[in-house]
Amino acid sequence: MSETSETTFPTTERSRIRRIHERGSHEKESVYSILDAAPMCHVGYVIDGQPLVTPTVHWRNGNRVYWHGSAASRFLRKSLGQEVCLTVSIMDGYILGRSAFSHSVQFRSAMCFGKVQIVEDPGEKKAALKDFVDNLFPGRWEELHITTEQEYKSTKVAFMEIDEATSKTRDGFPNDAHVAHQPAWGGYIPVETYLGEPKPSPDLVEGVELPGYLNTLVQSGKLRA
Amino acid sequence: MSETSETTFPTTERSRIRRIHERGSHEKESVYSILDAAPMCHVGYVIDGQPLVTPTVHWRNGNRVYWHGSAASRFLRKSLGQEVCLTVSIMDGYILGRSAFSHSVQFRSAMCFGKVQIVEDPGEKKAALKDFVDNLFPGRWEELHITTEQEYKSTKVAFMEIDEATSKTRDGFPNDAHVAHQPAWGGYIPVETYLGEPKPSPDLVEGVELPGYLNTLVQSGKLRA
Repeated sequence: MSETSETTFPTTERSRIRRIHERGSHEKESVYSILDAAPMCHVGYVIDGQPLVTPTVHWRNGNRVYWHGSAASRFLRKSLGQEVCLTVSIMDGYILGRSAFSHSVQFRSAMCFGKVQIVEDPGEKKAALKDFVDNLFPGRWEELHITTEQEYKSTKVAFMEIDEATSKTRDGFPNDAHVAHQPAWGGYIPVETYLGEPKPSPDLVEGVELPGYLNTLVQSGKLRA
Repeated sequence: MSETSETTFPTTERSRIRRIHERGSHEKESVYSILDAAPMCHVGYVIDGQPLVTPTVHWRNGNRVYWHGSAASRFLRKSLGQEVCLTVSIMDGYILGRSAFSHSVQFRSAMCFGKVQIVEDPGEKKAALKDFVDNLFPGRWEELHITTEQEYKSTKVAFMEIDEATSKTRDGFPNDAHVAHQPAWGGYIPVETYLGEPKPSPDLVEGVELPGYLNTLVQSGKLRA
C-alpha cells in the first residue's frame, strides 16, 4: 500500500492509476465533489461469481456513501458484507477528433471501493433518511413531518465506508494533433443537463404550492443542491 | 431457463425480474431502445474476486454491444473472456413523494449479460469503428476519410453478444396514496439533457465549418442520433 494522508485515499493494486492521458487523482475532495454532483451511481457486486451492476440513488456523509431500497431487494440482500465497487460518472460532452480513434467524451468519474453495511440502529436510520432527503432537496424533511412505521420496516439503508477511491476527469479538446492537417471538423459538443418544470401530483392537498427550496434547486441549473 | 423467443431474451436466476412496482421486461426492443438512447454504459467485471465498474461509450449492432479503448487498458485486458454485466441507465426525473420513503427517480435502465470478446479481424475492426463513429454521428466517417495504422494498433474493440438482458423503467408520479392527506408538495421534476453549442478546436484547417450532420444532431434535442 502506498502512502496515504488525511486528504488522499490509500492506493493498492485495484485503485492504482494506470494511464496518464486522462487526469487521475486519489484526492478525497476530488472524489467527493464527483459523488456530490451526480444523483445516481452504479454499484458492482458479485453473486455466484457473476458480476452485477445496479444503478441507485446515493448520498454522502463524510467518508460514507449511502443508498436505500426495499428490504426485499436482491441487490441489498446479496451485496451485504461484500467488497463492492461504486462508480459515479458524469458525461460533460462529446470530443470529436479528426480521426476515428481520437473520439472520446468529456467526463468526471469516481470509482470507490468498500464493504457494504446496513444501518441497523433505528435512530441512525432515521438520521440517514433525513440526510438522503435533505441532501437532494435541502428543506424537504422539514416539509414532510412524518414517515410511517410501516415504511421504516419495509426499507433498508445501506452504506459503505470508502476505503479506496480514484477520480478521473477528461475535458477540453481532442488529442488529435497528428491529424490536424485533415480538413474535417474537430472540437467538442457539451452535454447540458437541467431540471425542468416541476409537475405536481394530481391529488395534492388544496392550496399546496411548489415550495421555495424546490424552486431554488430548479433555478440553480444543477441536479443536486 | 424459461421460455424464450425471437423477441425476448431468455431468463435465468441472474436476470429474473423480481419486483413489480417498477416495470420490468425481457423484450429485446425495450433493451435495445435503452442501449441506443444513452451514450455511456457501466461494465461490471471481476478481478481477483473484486468487482470493478468501468464507464465507457458503447454502441450496438444487432444483438452485440461494442466498446473500444487503448490496448493498454486494464479494463479491456482483464475483462476479456469474462462474463460481464453491462448496465445502461438514464435518469429522467426526480419523484418526490409526500413521505421520505416514497422518494424515487424516473429512469430507464437495461442490464445485459454476456461474455467479452475482442474484434481480431482487421476488416471487422474497421467496420466496427465505422459503426462507432456513424452510430453516434451519422455522416462523420465520410468526413474523416483516414485513420492511421498506428491508431489501429494501439486501440482495441471489444464486444459482447447479449445472452440475457432485462430492462426496467419507472415514470409518472409518486406511489404515496397512503400519505395523500399530508399538506406537502408531491410530484416529479423532469431531468432534461441536451447537446449544447459545439466548440471548434482552435487549430482547424481554415474554412472548415460545422458540418450539417452535427448541426442536425444538436438540434434534435437527443444525445444520440
